[in-house]
Amino acid sequence: MSSSDYRDTVHVRYTRGGITGVGEGAPIVRYRENAAEAQRAIESVQQMLVSADPYQFAKVMAEVARRIEGQQAAKAAIDIALMDWFGQKVGVPLYTYFGLDAADAPITTFSIGIDNPDMTRQKVREAEPYPILKIKVGLDTDEATIEAVRSVTKKPLRVDANEGWKDKEEAVRKINWLESQGVEFVEQPMPAAMIEETRWVRSRVHIPILADESCLHPSDIPKMAGAFDGVNVKLDKTGGMLEAYRMIEIAKSLGMKTMLGCMISSSVSVTAAAHLSPLVDYADLDGNLLIANDPYSGVLVRNGKLILPNRPGLGLMPVAA
Amino acid sequence: MSSSDYRDTVHVRYTRGGITGVGEGAPIVRYRENAAEAQRAIESVQQMLVSADPYQFAKVMAEVARRIEGQQAAKAAIDIALMDWFGQKVGVPLYTYFGLDAADAPITTFSIGIDNPDMTRQKVREAEPYPILKIKVGLDTDEATIEAVRSVTKKPLRVDANEGWKDKEEAVRKINWLESQGVEFVEQPMPAAMIEETRWVRSRVHIPILADESCLHPSDIPKMAGAFDGVNVKLDKTGGMLEAYRMIEIAKSLGMKTMLGCMISSSVSVTAAAHLSPLVDYADLDGNLLIANDPYSGVLVRNGKLILPNRPGLGLMPVAA
Repeated sequence: MSSSDYRDTVHVRYTRGGITGVGEGAPIVRYRENAAEAQRAIESVQQMLVSADPYQFAKVMAEVARRIEGQQAAKAAIDIALMDWFGQKVGVPLYTYFGLDAADAPITTFSIGIDNPDMTRQKVREAEPYPILKIKVGLDTDEATIEAVRSVTKKPLRVDANEGWKDKEEAVRKINWLESQGVEFVEQPMPAAMIEETRWVRSRVHIPILADESCLHPSDIPKMAGAFDGVNVKLDKTGGMLEAYRMIEIAKSLGMKTMLGCMISSSVSVTAAAHLSPLVDYADLDGNLLIANDPYSGVLVRNGKLILPNRPGLGLMPVAA
Repeated sequence: MSSSDYRDTVHVRYTRGGITGVGEGAPIVRYRENAAEAQRAIESVQQMLVSADPYQFAKVMAEVARRIEGQQAAKAAIDIALMDWFGQKVGVPLYTYFGLDAADAPITTFSIGIDNPDMTRQKVREAEPYPILKIKVGLDTDEATIEAVRSVTKKPLRVDANEGWKDKEEAVRKINWLESQGVEFVEQPMPAAMIEETRWVRSRVHIPILADESCLHPSDIPKMAGAFDGVNVKLDKTGGMLEAYRMIEIAKSLGMKTMLGCMISSSVSVTAAAHLSPLVDYADLDGNLLIANDPYSGVLVRNGKLILPNRPGLGLMPVAA
């Protein structure tokens, strides 16, 4: 939630038959993950991966899930590397693997980190190329933040409350005020476990409520129905593209909205998510736009719209050092 | 349920760039489907399919679903043809498309149709190569049928009650007796809508209860949890491989058992299901073994085990006339 100069992600390079797939995962502090433990988790299955048949990527990932408890970022890095390898091997971009049309990729929000009103105004001005902004809320300063944003732009806003409101009446008050400020939806207004309180809130507001921290596993999604209007699926939360695909499809089959989100990471992780983005209603895939040392070029953003690379696998190109 | 000399299925041939994918769907009378209407449904989207990009198969199937109400067999035929085309185009068998290991394909049951005890004994003897049998029950003659089977074999049995028991106490009595006869699980003991009665039955029996007619759409699966132990997924019910994959994954993510079933059809439809079979606990994929005029050779059965063709796409080979 705060600005920082340094984010540690884990990387996997999977080489077989002259083809290298790359993967990345961003450990999520909220789930007590860190890069060192994620790295150890990856090393714990290295021998298994070396001897596995990468054509059996779904079976391999099921075995990885059996061997590694938690550590979703580590799993995501492995899954993405295998899918990149397979896409390159069969010669199609991963969006084509999933049978999708790259032209259906949505507009991504651009995140405005929490800051004082002056800095917020400056950040919003700098975000001029992005037609939809995502604002972090859930603090005492919410009104001041939104007013600062609104003093310089009329763009649609989406907000992430990050479990910030502990009281359901406060949540209703905040959400209804945010609606009056042109906010399209609210992500995770209340703490993850407060499903029933969120159901109560949802019945008293008009804009959609999306689950993030409340929804980690496919089996969580049916429990969300009725309390939330949709789910935010992140590869670092699900453990990769295959599971993210499953969660999106489950949510859609239950009539829920879907969103793809990401952590702060390089183009490896964000491009992986972007290949699934033609499936979803909303995208919040700006993690790679917030770093200075991206080793790859992959998904691009043009007037906010995600432009998927039309190259096999993830379609990444190394950035010249 | 009864023996018959003739089954009508619908077929799709999809040719693009020198590659032809084939698909098949078997209309299900229970859902008021028939081949003539399925054929009309296919023709209604023919122009759209001709102008569509088959690399966007998932998007195309979503559009097919929007344009065709019901007619799942028609949708299955189109979906299977597109997936066969794509698998051939990228040069991998469809089980590899799904990242699976062909060696994980399960043993299929072989179905013994309802008949008098003499004929039942003869059918069971003829089914000698198949290590697990599926028996249709749900009639007054259930005891006589099972006793006839048991008089000639000790093989594990699975039974399909096809909504046959209307009374929940009768269902409990029957199921507990069937368990004593070496039956592994019961499919659809009660009418599709009797979810609560089935939940009551389930709490009083020891062998798993699988849903067939109760479970048509992905959104049905969460409602089944607790009333059934698993679901029988059929391509002709789901409208193809993509949706069947989703249903299997949803059921698994909810901790339910999964089974792939089929209607009586050629190797086209049964092979499509077989490519997904490494994902499931149980297979009932013998529809092609019950016909005399199979135009293709695809999945084979050796000692009951499904042997998937190691060729691109469905991997079908025309049978010389």
